[in-house]
Amino acid sequence: MGRDQGDGLVAIAGRIGVVTSVALNLAVFAFYLRGAGDKEAGKKVKKAAAVAPSSGKPPVCADSIINLDHGDPTMFEAFWRGPMGERATVVIPGWQTMSYFSDVGNLCWFLEPGLEREVRRLHRLVGNAAAEGYHVLVGTGSMQLFQAALYALAPPGGAAAPISIVSPAPFYSSYPAVTDFLKSGLYRWAGDANAFEGDEYIELVCSPSNPDGGIREAVLKSKSGKAIHDLAYYWPQYTPITHMLAHDIMLFTVSKCTGHAGTRIGWALVKDREVAQKMNKYLELNTIGVSKDSQLRAAKILETVADGYERQPAGATGDASLLFHYAQRQMMQRWRALRAAVTASGIFSLPDEVAGFCTFAKDTVTANPAFAWLRCDKEGVDDLEGFLREHKIITRSGTRFGADPKVVRVSMVDTDEAFSIFVDRLAAMK
Amino acid sequence: MGRDQGDGLVAIAGRIGVVTSVALNLAVFAFYLRGAGDKEAGKKVKKAAAVAPSSGKPPVCADSIINLDHGDPTMFEAFWRGPMGERATVVIPGWQTMSYFSDVGNLCWFLEPGLEREVRRLHRLVGNAAAEGYHVLVGTGSMQLFQAALYALAPPGGAAAPISIVSPAPFYSSYPAVTDFLKSGLYRWAGDANAFEGDEYIELVCSPSNPDGGIREAVLKSKSGKAIHDLAYYWPQYTPITHMLAHDIMLFTVSKCTGHAGTRIGWALVKDREVAQKMNKYLELNTIGVSKDSQLRAAKILETVADGYERQPAGATGDASLLFHYAQRQMMQRWRALRAAVTASGIFSLPDEVAGFCTFAKDTVTANPAFAWLRCDKEGVDDLEGFLREHKIITRSGTRFGADPKVVRVSMVDTDEAFSIFVDRLAAMK
Repeated sequence: MGRDQGDGLVAIAGRIGVVTSVALNLAVFAFYLRGAGDKEAGKKVKKAAAVAPSSGKPPVCADSIINLDHGDPTMFEAFWRGPMGERATVVIPGWQTMSYFSDVGNLCWFLEPGLEREVRRLHRLVGNAAAEGYHVLVGTGSMQLFQAALYALAPPGGAAAPISIVSPAPFYSSYPAVTDFLKSGLYRWAGDANAFEGDEYIELVCSPSNPDGGIREAVLKSKSGKAIHDLAYYWPQYTPITHMLAHDIMLFTVSKCTGHAGTRIGWALVKDREVAQKMNKYLELNTIGVSKDSQLRAAKILETVADGYERQPAGATGDASLLFHYAQRQMMQRWRALRAAVTASGIFSLPDEVAGFCTFAKDTVTANPAFAWLRCDKEGVDDLEGFLREHKIITRSGTRFGADPKVVRVSMVDTDEAFSIFVDRLAAMK
Repeated sequence: MGRDQGDGLVAIAGRIGVVTSVALNLAVFAFYLRGAGDKEAGKKVKKAAAVAPSSGKPPVCADSIINLDHGDPTMFEAFWRGPMGERATVVIPGWQTMSYFSDVGNLCWFLEPGLEREVRRLHRLVGNAAAEGYHVLVGTGSMQLFQAALYALAPPGGAAAPISIVSPAPFYSSYPAVTDFLKSGLYRWAGDANAFEGDEYIELVCSPSNPDGGIREAVLKSKSGKAIHDLAYYWPQYTPITHMLAHDIMLFTVSKCTGHAGTRIGWALVKDREVAQKMNKYLELNTIGVSKDSQLRAAKILETVADGYERQPAGATGDASLLFHYAQRQMMQRWRALRAAVTASGIFSLPDEVAGFCTFAKDTVTANPAFAWLRCDKEGVDDLEGFLREHKIITRSGTRFGADPKVVRVSMVDTDEAFSIFVDRLAAMK
């Protein structure tokens, strides 16, 4: 792949760099793959069309663009191609689950009973969150549930001003974009929680934190303030499970738990019945419920994970039947490789490694966040995202997270091939 | 089922009658099933739990509450339990479609290529809409795409005032609720298009019309106005296909086409690339794409429908392999039964029957709308929804559609059992 295309990519990146979008870098990536109108376009399109059936992304090789912008959890595919994969297969006949309804007796009437059962079972197994006494809601990914929670917690319309939505910086880059894109009169992004003054707010608490992996608690303490706990990464592969959390609203997603991002299934544990009802109303109005096919599949996947621990399936040796142990080992190896590359390079730094006693692993383990919060202090590198892009590594700039441009967020959960090329390139940068 | 419970239901209905919700009547229904705290509660819960795996709704018997509020298309289940059903089975192994991405080279990067192919193929087969030269977008049902279209067509933020969203009355009851629930600064519900004055608007054109089945065209003609065509019911079982439509934005859903509401898959055909990109951005921000499992299933279902016409599958006789012919025959029989019941009763009326030459059926056929727009002119019946509710028939009041309370919308696509009990009860009302 020639130097011209590298330049082209940078130019494109600069051109659309002013747009804020969840998929900003994806757009760049796709635009680039489509050839951006240059002579190579035809070849590029053909290459992009030759996608693996499970990911839609073309395979990478040593000189490929490596896209680590999204936390696309394809690293877990290897586990599901192992002995547990077949157990997680779903078969859906043509006549099944045609109705809008899953259980008219449930507050969340479109929630498949099997999914609710497996969600509760998984939390009992892992011990990361209290599910008993909570309402379970299903969403099209946890970001839809995040919006449902904003809708439910915001004072009803007619209030003088939209309520302020805050999160301590660095905060997940989607929070401001998703909060504000419809210019709702109910709520409005108000930035860094640490800089917020006032008593009326909704604080978004992402723990472990996307982007930096830190364990967070609400920083604001007003009695009238409210909190939404985004616990997408509170699973044993990413961090020691130190407490069974029991917050008012807790959000999870199969995407980060098992790696099935494409199923778009998240769930919320909600303590208060009225809040759960209002969140459910959001889900009704926004999408009239949630894909049943994905719910059936997510239920099967979670069942397989729990069975791996509780029923010792035949034919699986080592940690091949133990998703969290397998994934924790993989993540640990990746973090070791990344720290070695950072040391070899000498121009980067990472947050300090932290460890704690994990009640699930029953051992002291290190945290292995799903993202690396990578900083570069080399003189002349004022825009780390742009610098890495020149090396054909696509990451997300700290500026998107309320931080500075000398830091980027890098996905740690992409394929082995992509990750390996990334650390090799990183180690070689001086 | 005792008279007390009947009274209880009416009382509950009255109590929550002030709330506006897509699932208003569902809430009543579910609340009732849960027993509303009375002595029968235990029994009711058990009954509700014994749901059919495919619908989540309890079976009905002669004295059941019949819920025809939603257009829950369960009537098509019988077709999919026939010889074509097995062909439509999907098998999804544990490792498949884990990534967020389906095709990074496509504007709609989360659209499964197989679904796009089958959508285009189906439109070629049916001839109801031009797909060539259009972008295909997938949504979590067509209502998510409706919101995406509002977002894409509204002037970008910073404009003086939200753009007016209008639709000629009677309009689909979800339009105002879905347009306004987040109090967006981009757009605002402005009611009946026929009463609208001004040049800046987005008109929602639902054809055939939900609720009344009429064929509609945009009523407003300003050059600067925009239109969204909601064609959920423009399929041969509901109405003769008289034209291949080619509007700027056309919305469809598998829910009404094949009966698979639970898959939550809709699609949009969009002429303009920039509009398609902006709609896609909505889908990224709202739900980071759309369930791949449901997309794979929808692709398989649409493939099976087209194969039924184009590949004459073995083992299927009559119209058992021809979804639209089968469904058209069923709908025609239901409409005959309904018109007979209305005649027998003497207190109701329906819109006149209309017919036209269907280019798909190559014959003159009557329209058989998915909803009956039922009017009652009996003296003393000022609230038809309430009147029918006393007869344990749940419908949706005309007031929700910008019409009067002497009319209701009744689903014509529920199960055979529910429909049959409904017409029997209706015929007996004097």
